[in-house]
Amino acid sequence: MNTATEKPLVLITAGPTREAIDPVRYISNHSSGKMGYAIATAFLEAGYPVVLVSGPVNLTLTNPNLTTINVNSADEMFAACKAYFASAKIAVFAAAVADYKPAEIYINKMKKSASEFDLKMVKNVDIAYEFGQVKTNDQVAVGFALETNDEEQNALKKLYKKNFDLIVLNSTQDSGATFGFDTNKITIINKDFVFRALPLKSKAELGRDIAQAAIKLVKTNTDKTINQTQLT
Amino acid sequence: MNTATEKPLVLITAGPTREAIDPVRYISNHSSGKMGYAIATAFLEAGYPVVLVSGPVNLTLTNPNLTTINVNSADEMFAACKAYFASAKIAVFAAAVADYKPAEIYINKMKKSASEFDLKMVKNVDIAYEFGQVKTNDQVAVGFALETNDEEQNALKKLYKKNFDLIVLNSTQDSGATFGFDTNKITIINKDFVFRALPLKSKAELGRDIAQAAIKLVKTNTDKTINQTQLT
Repeated sequence: MNTATEKPLVLITAGPTREAIDPVRYISNHSSGKMGYAIATAFLEAGYPVVLVSGPVNLTLTNPNLTTINVNSADEMFAACKAYFASAKIAVFAAAVADYKPAEIYINKMKKSASEFDLKMVKNVDIAYEFGQVKTNDQVAVGFALETNDEEQNALKKLYKKNFDLIVLNSTQDSGATFGFDTNKITIINKDFVFRALPLKSKAELGRDIAQAAIKLVKTNTDKTINQTQLT
Repeated sequence: MNTATEKPLVLITAGPTREAIDPVRYISNHSSGKMGYAIATAFLEAGYPVVLVSGPVNLTLTNPNLTTINVNSADEMFAACKAYFASAKIAVFAAAVADYKPAEIYINKMKKSASEFDLKMVKNVDIAYEFGQVKTNDQVAVGFALETNDEEQNALKKLYKKNFDLIVLNSTQDSGATFGFDTNKITIINKDFVFRALPLKSKAELGRDIAQAAIKLVKTNTDKTINQTQLT
């Protein structure tokens, strides 16, 4: 009864990344992974096989059609995604990947002596951007924007720059939304800059909304391909 | 049946701290809080009232004799401890407090533009040191050392500098020990620099060993006080 074999592979990243400073310290962020896991659940319910590349979270998901790869750093996440991206029809970049990482990882725990110091930070790999560069026309990429200011403008810039087909805008301004909460308030924006603002809902419901929006685009792509085939 | 009212208060810190960089990013460490919570459990089992000041962990402990105060940053942990330290006879500083915090917390999420930048870090409050300065003779303080190199020498320096009565040395060199594991391998060192190396045990058992070592010192202190009273 493996209906999933007929459906295309979905690659999803979720959770935060942890960027090591030394063997005990790291830089991370407040992502709980709930939104990414909810999207994975929605695709699994719809019969899609899913590869979930997850940063450190307190969530577990088991399903015969699910492969979970646990990672810590952005570099590890990127490496894990590379192995699956080409086979995936839909990629959802829901992880809150650290933008920067310490330039150097100290092998021994740093001793504290100076009253202050500068932690040199260098830009991390931009996973969604990298895959946006190699994405083919029959692949659908969904990204996320979490903005504290100039929300819509920043989200549109990100959609364009990273070659997303859809971008999900989270606002930190809404109460009951984003990090740690079980509910969220999002706006789904497509490549035609059409905004679809959804009411405050559970992350489970929003996971279904996002999955369905991506599935619809894959179907449209497929239809286009068929039409072109008929034309030639 | 509140036997705890006859026993003195125990103040315990546990878990990591989180030092905010901006509304979404933070610096933390791999402390799971398991050791601190195990020590709290041991004191509660022995009938002591406990105030547990805990950084963000995935553990819960409930007991009628327990007050738990949840904090994020070192500054918050220090403030919470201040309210209880004077009333406590035993203080166990088991938290992995961040040594440094970002000099500035950005109110809005930082935008990533520069390819690298320096994150200015300033020294955090040294909670155990601060209380070591005001500790009275009838208070017992227990500290922890997690060292990746020159373990014993660094532990002794810390015992002396922070005015601990006991220091628990964790080694990151032992497998099955420290962060995240349910077992640990520790050495308890007292003010006479007597080393008591314990075999690999569950954190629950080690919690009892550490609690009993501290309780023994409180009793010795009490005996001394009685002897001095008899002498005068």
